[in-house]
Amino acid sequence: MSASARSTGSPSAARTARLAVKTSRRTELRNITADIADIVARSGVVSGVCHVYVPHTTAGVTINEGADPDVARDIELTFDRLAPRNAAGYQHAEGNSDSHVKTAIVGSSQTVFIEHGRLVLGTWQAIFLCEFDGPRTREVLVRSVPDAAV
Amino acid sequence: MSASARSTGSPSAARTARLAVKTSRRTELRNITADIADIVARSGVVSGVCHVYVPHTTAGVTINEGADPDVARDIELTFDRLAPRNAAGYQHAEGNSDSHVKTAIVGSSQTVFIEHGRLVLGTWQAIFLCEFDGPRTREVLVRSVPDAAV
Amino acid sequence: MSASARSTGSPSAARTARLAVKTSRRTELRNITADIADIVARSGVVSGVCHVYVPHTTAGVTINEGADPDVARDIELTFDRLAPRNAAGYQHAEGNSDSHVKTAIVGSSQTVFIEHGRLVLGTWQAIFLCEFDGPRTREVLVRSVPDAAV
Repeated sequence: MSASARSTGSPSAARTARLAVKTSRRTELRNITADIADIVARSGVVSGVCHVYVPHTTAGVTINEGADPDVARDIELTFDRLAPRNAAGYQHAEGNSDSHVKTAIVGSSQTVFIEHGRLVLGTWQAIFLCEFDGPRTREVLVRSVPDAAV
Repeated sequence: MSASARSTGSPSAARTARLAVKTSRRTELRNITADIADIVARSGVVSGVCHVYVPHTTAGVTINEGADPDVARDIELTFDRLAPRNAAGYQHAEGNSDSHVKTAIVGSSQTVFIEHGRLVLGTWQAIFLCEFDGPRTREVLVRSVPDAAV
Repeated sequence: MSASARSTGSPSAARTARLAVKTSRRTELRNITADIADIVARSGVVSGVCHVYVPHTTAGVTINEGADPDVARDIELTFDRLAPRNAAGYQHAEGNSDSHVKTAIVGSSQTVFIEHGRLVLGTWQAIFLCEFDGPRTREVLVRSVPDAAV
């Protein structure tokens, strides 16, 4: 996978990691589960919550089936139908209003539980960066939050 | 309600509860507020945040009006229109690509605040499991996270 | 901006603030970033997570571009097309089923990281209250959660 992760240096933000993800198509769901799992493992958090955040306005993040890549393709197809690239009436001059709409639909973050030091995902679940105005290199922020001491 | 909850036995995941929810139609918003409220009450968390997570790829979770059941029905109707079951072009062989799309639209988790030991929901708000490929028995994970000690 | 914030008095919910937001159109994305940033600054949280929650069923919250207001207008336009106000088949008697559907699509909450006492937003990102049945005065709940002590 063409993604690389590094921890932030700041001590006051020790739990946030940044991930770079290269996309190759305009609309593309890219499976980043292995990278997120790796970041969580290195965070040392045994029990808690992992927040995955995309700091862009034409890309988001979703959780869906990772086993059959046709599922991601069918989601891409349907999103391109829900917000067509050249729909009448768009005012935004950059020509990517559809990309902004799709981002609003999937959302900018996902929350996944951490148990026994690992992400708690369902059997078929994978985490996808949702590229809606690619190809580009995108950034993903990952924060692993341990349970508070009781 | 045909749902039952049990706590996980593991001490390192003491705050996660699992809920089984039986659905009866292919597309169905099922009100699970009472079950979630019960789990939060039993968690002992007085002030914090509750994360509700659905570990499936053809079911999600949303928050919307629980008073008039027609609202949930109209949401079901509209989602079935946004992603028709037999739209042209789907590649996924299982015939439920629409279910995956609808799940991506509503999302896999919701976050609700906890104050005074109770969920902070608006007057009309209820939490719904969103079944998009039923009928089935679904699992919902609930994590009640107390505020950190200051 | 026509929004005002106050802290909740309760000591057990010291981290939740409430924000009133006045909207002026039926469908309107209203930029509330400055208000949320102000609440986070006053919370004293240096490193953690901010949850923004809308306790309504015909209004939600999203994160998208704040620089060019045409982006928000194009999102409003597209949402009004995805769930038309007078679509055939709606059963809910209040005539705002489309507003409930749009709320389910964007969602009721957003999660943003806090580092160095400030929201971590991408260059173009802004937080929007999504009014789908206005004009009204809406409430937004904001919870700033500090990292647990390690």
